[in-house]
Amino acid sequence: MDNDKLNGAESLVQTLAASGVTMCFANPGTSEMHFVAALDRIAGPRCVLGLFEGVVTGAADGYYRMSGTPAATLLHLGPGLGNGLANLHNAGKARSGIVNIVGDHALAHARFESPLKSDAAAIAGSVSHWVRSSASAADVGADGAAAVQATRDGAVGRIATLLLPADTAWGAGGRAAVATPRPAAPAVDADAVQAAARVLHHLGPRAVLLLGAGGSGSAQAQHLAVAIAAKTGCRLLAEFYNARMPGGRGRPQIDRLPYMVDAALARLAGAEALVLAGAPEPIGFFAYPDKPSQLKPPGASLLTLAAPQQDVPAALQALADALDVTLVPLASRAAPVAPAGALTPDHIAAAIALTLPEQAVVIDEGVTTGRGLAAAMGAAAPHDWLAVMGGAIGWGLPGAVGAALGAPGRPVLALEGDGSAMYTLQALWTMAREQLPVVVLVFANRAYRILQGELLGVGATLSGQKAADMLSLERPALDWVSLARGHGVPGIRVESAEALVKALRDGFASHAPCLIEAVL
Amino acid sequence: MDNDKLNGAESLVQTLAASGVTMCFANPGTSEMHFVAALDRIAGPRCVLGLFEGVVTGAADGYYRMSGTPAATLLHLGPGLGNGLANLHNAGKARSGIVNIVGDHALAHARFESPLKSDAAAIAGSVSHWVRSSASAADVGADGAAAVQATRDGAVGRIATLLLPADTAWGAGGRAAVATPRPAAPAVDADAVQAAARVLHHLGPRAVLLLGAGGSGSAQAQHLAVAIAAKTGCRLLAEFYNARMPGGRGRPQIDRLPYMVDAALARLAGAEALVLAGAPEPIGFFAYPDKPSQLKPPGASLLTLAAPQQDVPAALQALADALDVTLVPLASRAAPVAPAGALTPDHIAAAIALTLPEQAVVIDEGVTTGRGLAAAMGAAAPHDWLAVMGGAIGWGLPGAVGAALGAPGRPVLALEGDGSAMYTLQALWTMAREQLPVVVLVFANRAYRILQGELLGVGATLSGQKAADMLSLERPALDWVSLARGHGVPGIRVESAEALVKALRDGFASHAPCLIEAVL
Repeated sequence: MDNDKLNGAESLVQTLAASGVTMCFANPGTSEMHFVAALDRIAGPRCVLGLFEGVVTGAADGYYRMSGTPAATLLHLGPGLGNGLANLHNAGKARSGIVNIVGDHALAHARFESPLKSDAAAIAGSVSHWVRSSASAADVGADGAAAVQATRDGAVGRIATLLLPADTAWGAGGRAAVATPRPAAPAVDADAVQAAARVLHHLGPRAVLLLGAGGSGSAQAQHLAVAIAAKTGCRLLAEFYNARMPGGRGRPQIDRLPYMVDAALARLAGAEALVLAGAPEPIGFFAYPDKPSQLKPPGASLLTLAAPQQDVPAALQALADALDVTLVPLASRAAPVAPAGALTPDHIAAAIALTLPEQAVVIDEGVTTGRGLAAAMGAAAPHDWLAVMGGAIGWGLPGAVGAALGAPGRPVLALEGDGSAMYTLQALWTMAREQLPVVVLVFANRAYRILQGELLGVGATLSGQKAADMLSLERPALDWVSLARGHGVPGIRVESAEALVKALRDGFASHAPCLIEAVL
Repeated sequence: MDNDKLNGAESLVQTLAASGVTMCFANPGTSEMHFVAALDRIAGPRCVLGLFEGVVTGAADGYYRMSGTPAATLLHLGPGLGNGLANLHNAGKARSGIVNIVGDHALAHARFESPLKSDAAAIAGSVSHWVRSSASAADVGADGAAAVQATRDGAVGRIATLLLPADTAWGAGGRAAVATPRPAAPAVDADAVQAAARVLHHLGPRAVLLLGAGGSGSAQAQHLAVAIAAKTGCRLLAEFYNARMPGGRGRPQIDRLPYMVDAALARLAGAEALVLAGAPEPIGFFAYPDKPSQLKPPGASLLTLAAPQQDVPAALQALADALDVTLVPLASRAAPVAPAGALTPDHIAAAIALTLPEQAVVIDEGVTTGRGLAAAMGAAAPHDWLAVMGGAIGWGLPGAVGAALGAPGRPVLALEGDGSAMYTLQALWTMAREQLPVVVLVFANRAYRILQGELLGVGATLSGQKAADMLSLERPALDWVSLARGHGVPGIRVESAEALVKALRDGFASHAPCLIEAVL
């Protein structure tokens, strides 16, 4: 198509394609109709529809984590962006790169009080690292290229939001642009490597090597970290939540810092230094009366071997070299044993470890039930484990959509609490439309179980029915098999370990979406 | 309970109760556990659980529209507030009063980078007229009373958001407070009344009396407006969307300004003045190439008889007095006739008009299908008609929850597009838990039909499958009967007018929630 004849929307579609953005998760409205029309006329990103904006933004997060490239989202005005806000929060904490395209009112229309007038820039600013509103059709292409560039933060990603007033989309004079190539991540800091080597060597078990980002995110980096710990005697931990953590047979099995504050304090007790390899300082999820926010012992020092933006695997390699470490062979692990009987946490873990296919991607939003799974997963087939990073539930099902599209051909297992799955259950429909190989396992404990624990954690006590009702999902019990069917996804209810194993095997074998409701 | 021994959360619960807030729609998290616990210990608002925050905020909007008093919402941190944002936008445009209580991190915790750290104040500011974060437990009661007061904007409501850091909730030294009594709405402006009387008298059919807020919202005000139009010959219209509009037999039937820009321009063509009775200046929903944003003819003057904040019915009474108008008897209307055959728009309208119970509350988020219903509803039993006011779809099902709780004993009919219902379908569960008398009628056209029209409206053309897929809800078709069952609500699919009539009758007779999927 002749570049002179593009409208703004067409120039943006062309720019995104030229800049390596090949996927667009969309929930469009009127102000995005020119962008939608342009998708038909210009070779551009593949477009996947979500029936709610939280599906769109959560999918973009999952997609980035598996593909390493930003997806575009297409959202409708301030309220549409608002609906996608929680998963943009999560994506920001996961350091995922996303280009949000948010249609807005035409510039001349925005000065009037119309029903959908909103402060989209303010909403965008609360979760974006970069926000721009295009001023004219001629600017849209360059703005789109700038948005793609703004998603890059060294080795990790960021959230960029481009507001597209409708008249800049439909206006003539669009000029396609192209983002610059992605620059290399900041180099390893040799001084930091030397400092970390000294601390680990001298403190041994009184030092903790804490992995995050590229440290926990690479099997090779994990392997190096295990060898460093073996050589120096330091303690080795990963963050509690990790954006993407390889695991399973033939890979190291690295303990994660516990979620519960008391348990985390115990794991770090006696440490005099924490060496951070891609992890920020460990901080409690929430504050509790008379408990610290900082999980490290008072007075313990913090050493940053590498920030998340840096090449963390390279920094660990440099650290291993400085310590003259050689890789240690991993202990072989017993094969998982088929569980039988009730759906206990151990049996659920064993069923997953037994049935997980090679190279599966596990999306972990199992909340309370999910916490107990880690130990068993070392015996599972090699896989990647993705956790919700910002603590805002409703990420899991959309994240599974994005992970499946970001890693074509790999099976996906989405672990969901029944409470968390409800926030964005519309993602099931996108799984059905795109026939994604996602097995959804819902842990139906029929409660906000985490809150029943948190209520005790903050020192409050539950004395009556009114509060109990706020934490229970009974009356009525959700029927997940019907919810799945309503979205076009086959479902099955299981109440024993044997049935769970069979349902998981059947689900993975189908290479299509299915939902398993495990009644706990 | 001894006031000296309250914690901050308890002081807030006591303050809300003392200030007339008797309903709390909640989706709590960890940071709200003390508030939840306080609800058990202190006589306070009734608490209704929503499984997604958009349900909570939309319900608060519906509740205000029927009860005239603000509900509280209980939301979890910035992401939870984000999930409720779109329906807060709608509530703001509806001029509904809501007190959002948003738990936030403890003050000492907020300086650290924890997963759920977010800029809740920025998110709140984008949709709230008033935002405050409590500084200490001792302030929480007074802040809560100030929040209730901040929901009042003369005769209408506003959005107030109180951020409650967790330590201000659990901290000792809470002091309950009480909001001041609601002040009277600003008085009628006698000069405005005289000016409006002169204009209507002199211009007759070249003037338009446009009703909004309390003008369209009161049957008595409508009746006065009809008499004024009869006397002066002026044109009489209501806004396209109205927060609450009485209708049905024994009431005036007032045409609404059309949604489509061309049709609206035609209705206002030739007008030299618009007299605004609770309505703002009419503005198009969206801008379109080569169409105006302002719907009034260029050069036509705008006269504000009464702003939405004023006592609009009193202003219309004063106008009627100034014009020496007497109420005119309403024409009697033919009883609705039972429709037979296909589910055409006319047959759907007739089925609703025929079966709607006395004093029903109709929630209209029928989008394209809903637009054709108005003409037939004059023959229905007396009812109130509530429309989504901010244009952000996903308001209807939550609004129905709130309306049912705000008008106990009155039957509710929720009209939904299949596209719009998907945004907040979790509201079905709250209907089931509270056993609300809501009949949900889903118009299953299996498309974003409005967008198929809007695409033409902006001058874009649909040339290929890629864009068509973004506007279609086929592949797979949603199964609304299963979706309802999954949430604990019985459902039925109908494909004929006769079946629709029977399903509506059965649904209203059940005095419990049900869902009807009308396949179009």
